[in-house]
Amino acid sequence: MNFQVYDTTLRDGAQQEGMNVSVNDKIAIATLLDELGVGFIEGGWPGAIPKDTDFFSRARRELKFRNAVLAAFGATRKAGVSADADPQVRALLDSEAPVVTLVAKSDIRHVERALKTTPDENLAMIQDTVALLRQQGRRVMVDAEHFFDGYRFDPRYTTRAVEVAFEAGAEAVILCDTNGGMLPEWVGEIVAELREATGTGTPETILGMHAHNDTGCAVANTLAAVNAGARHVQGTVNGYGERTGNADLLTVIANLEVKYDLKTLAGDLANATHVAHQISEITNITPYGRQPYVGASAFAHKAGLHASAIKVDPDLYQHMDPTRVGNDMRMLVSEMAGRASIELKGRELGFDLAGRSDVLTAITNRVKDAEANGYVFDAADASFELLLVEELEGTRPKYFAVESWRAIVERVGPRGTQASAEATVKLVAGGERIVTIGEGNGPVNALDHALRVALEQVYPEINKFELVDFKVRILDETHGTDAITRVLIETTDGVSTWSTVGVGPNVLEASWEALTDSAIYGLRREGIDPR
Amino acid sequence: MNFQVYDTTLRDGAQQEGMNVSVNDKIAIATLLDELGVGFIEGGWPGAIPKDTDFFSRARRELKFRNAVLAAFGATRKAGVSADADPQVRALLDSEAPVVTLVAKSDIRHVERALKTTPDENLAMIQDTVALLRQQGRRVMVDAEHFFDGYRFDPRYTTRAVEVAFEAGAEAVILCDTNGGMLPEWVGEIVAELREATGTGTPETILGMHAHNDTGCAVANTLAAVNAGARHVQGTVNGYGERTGNADLLTVIANLEVKYDLKTLAGDLANATHVAHQISEITNITPYGRQPYVGASAFAHKAGLHASAIKVDPDLYQHMDPTRVGNDMRMLVSEMAGRASIELKGRELGFDLAGRSDVLTAITNRVKDAEANGYVFDAADASFELLLVEELEGTRPKYFAVESWRAIVERVGPRGTQASAEATVKLVAGGERIVTIGEGNGPVNALDHALRVALEQVYPEINKFELVDFKVRILDETHGTDAITRVLIETTDGVSTWSTVGVGPNVLEASWEALTDSAIYGLRREGIDPR
Repeated sequence: MNFQVYDTTLRDGAQQEGMNVSVNDKIAIATLLDELGVGFIEGGWPGAIPKDTDFFSRARRELKFRNAVLAAFGATRKAGVSADADPQVRALLDSEAPVVTLVAKSDIRHVERALKTTPDENLAMIQDTVALLRQQGRRVMVDAEHFFDGYRFDPRYTTRAVEVAFEAGAEAVILCDTNGGMLPEWVGEIVAELREATGTGTPETILGMHAHNDTGCAVANTLAAVNAGARHVQGTVNGYGERTGNADLLTVIANLEVKYDLKTLAGDLANATHVAHQISEITNITPYGRQPYVGASAFAHKAGLHASAIKVDPDLYQHMDPTRVGNDMRMLVSEMAGRASIELKGRELGFDLAGRSDVLTAITNRVKDAEANGYVFDAADASFELLLVEELEGTRPKYFAVESWRAIVERVGPRGTQASAEATVKLVAGGERIVTIGEGNGPVNALDHALRVALEQVYPEINKFELVDFKVRILDETHGTDAITRVLIETTDGVSTWSTVGVGPNVLEASWEALTDSAIYGLRREGIDPR
Repeated sequence: MNFQVYDTTLRDGAQQEGMNVSVNDKIAIATLLDELGVGFIEGGWPGAIPKDTDFFSRARRELKFRNAVLAAFGATRKAGVSADADPQVRALLDSEAPVVTLVAKSDIRHVERALKTTPDENLAMIQDTVALLRQQGRRVMVDAEHFFDGYRFDPRYTTRAVEVAFEAGAEAVILCDTNGGMLPEWVGEIVAELREATGTGTPETILGMHAHNDTGCAVANTLAAVNAGARHVQGTVNGYGERTGNADLLTVIANLEVKYDLKTLAGDLANATHVAHQISEITNITPYGRQPYVGASAFAHKAGLHASAIKVDPDLYQHMDPTRVGNDMRMLVSEMAGRASIELKGRELGFDLAGRSDVLTAITNRVKDAEANGYVFDAADASFELLLVEELEGTRPKYFAVESWRAIVERVGPRGTQASAEATVKLVAGGERIVTIGEGNGPVNALDHALRVALEQVYPEINKFELVDFKVRILDETHGTDAITRVLIETTDGVSTWSTVGVGPNVLEASWEALTDSAIYGLRREGIDPR
């Protein structure tokens, strides 16, 4: 493939606010990126960041890529020292990464004001460092930092920096919109001018694009560069990165493959959604539902207007087939959704409501009432299904009847002393009254444990279920203390997961509702009858 | 101003997954949009959605716009009935909105397969409905639904639909990328071709752009249309909308004003950040930190590399002055941040750490350790400041010493019965031992109340403080039950707000840490000495 997809999630993406990945996380992310089929994975800056030095030494032993090549990021040599005497450059060689990507100044203002050296010395720094790494048998790429700002200020010098990099043996020079202020038409013009002036952009002198999203145009700027002859795109999974983030590599790739019919991945684009979500799990940054192509909402339809037409012909309302990126069309249940979308949602869940207009009306009204009280079903399919079952069968499955529950959390001693949490649950199941106590690291876990211990006496299948995520949201119309709390709980049986919602004036009340609904839904899903 | 900024947050934005706004919310959002200075505010679809009918009747009485004009959204008449006999069209007139925006089919496939009528009848529907509304003295705009997909399939028919709308008296025709599959260069070409073929795009025949973000190019597509002669942009605040959302109107406006130097708002762009965040509060949709221009991270710098250079010259690392959109530059504290960013952050908080290299090292190390344990200081300035104070003054302010606390939540009775929450706090303050009980709608509120009651005996100033937001995040490296919990609490004194973080194996433990830090920070900020 003569098109280079270069991922910098582990280096530039790690600048993301609130992101904090361990070496283990980096190994796991790199493995997913290789599975996706990107060509290059930038692992970090060995020598500058201890964690990254560790990453490269572990990567040598542990990472066996099928598709990707590992790249180490670093800087050109310091001013006034020879490249091989510069410890930062030596650390790049010591990393043993087959590809080294050097950040080089190409904006003369940064050379003089930030680097505080002369324009000529900066060019020599590029020349020497690239040459040394080539002598040592590395493939070398150069990130031309602040290229676009520099070009608009002094095209001559910026162009020269690019030429020097290629003359010294770089295989690709990546044009960086470091501050993210560019717009697509500007990028297109500048890249075309540069190719014209330098004859670069050939298979031997690849031009690349590194965009940030400060104008909301990172993806479009990357495409503009490709349309002007760039054959290398840099980005990060989920658009992680400093400020507004980097170009979202998944969106860029999907556009290139789906819209331009350009083959850019060694792997299958249908892994994109899976990889995006797995990496969100690892970085522990809540996925952005509206993310193009791979977002949970990307192919979710809410409007009653659309829903009725989608029943006729899905292609009329989708710009592509979601399965190409491993995503799905979803119908959302909401007060805005007409009966058409409730019917479609029912079908999605395996209930044929066609012609059951009484049921459709009843459900639509219940959904409206519940949403008015703070429930959200578009994020809690399992709770919606129980509501549906209740309407269809006149009652929800009676696996157990709760008599009371209580949770106590106590800390005796100063800051640092660990608190204890315990819960008591009293319920009737399988014809007998059951009283249990559960301990946990927190009140919700204690309640979860007490509920399990109680239920497993009658429904041992419950042991398969595990609570995997727990979200709390204060619905603060009425500010702070007397607000309503909404809890979303995600549970897995090891194979699939389901989400339930609870709402109440009390975080534990809401959690209890979501916990019990989760158990009811799970037992029903296993095909178990109330005992 | 002959450039039209048209907001559809209240109509198309309301299709956003998880969004559920009341009529009060809509009134509040419209007021903020008028304050921002947009030209047109689309309030909803009177007649089709009861809530929207109410909105327009209340808007007539309650909304006094300084800048904006209210627009009602609706559809062209049904096939086979006269426009003034169509109740949906009548409802648009009854709304008394000065502007009516009609959605019209312009893709022949939608005419035949979704609308199930003839191409000619569809054109007549546009003609008749626009003409009737004009006769009734309304300004009329036409949303050409699926314009781009339609144009690529059958340019002749799609072009005709646009011509008919203008011939019938529409002042603007908005070209809609309804399915969001377009790319900027395609939009630019098609809009230019259309103007060429029809002579539209004049002050009398305004062309507009309505983009969705399915390819991550909604903003760029809107700019491409403007560059090709469009003089009307539609979008939603924060990019709310179905699937991947609509074009983020704030990003579009900021690009037009900052990058193209085009005056598009009657108000001041510096309100953009405030309006974006206020509207997030109303919609109760967590703001997207990486949102261009107005996001909390939009001008936040984390990289040690950059931080040191920013000390030299901020302009080198920002594409614009954040204050133009009412945002600020922020330095983020993180394990990646070198001492330079800690020093800058200190300066931001009013501590001069220049030359205090011992302190800088100590703080940097503590931050690294704390982040390894799950703390995030980039989201909790107040907690970071307390850590800073502790390092500088050898200890954190000793306003009180906690002996123990306990929270109990109990529900007796079946689903629906309300649970009770109470908390006990024992602490020493002002030289005396204080034991208090607090009740609340939940354990955190009960603890909050008990803590206040205890502290107000010694520090009455505490009554000014109010907990306004409470976020819980399970750090699920170890899945579910024995995971670490992180709590972020936002507190206000009515004037400003501050955020504190707590981490623990227990949601209440973490909350308690954040609550007590919030009180300590608030008291110190008020300039109160420990008593």
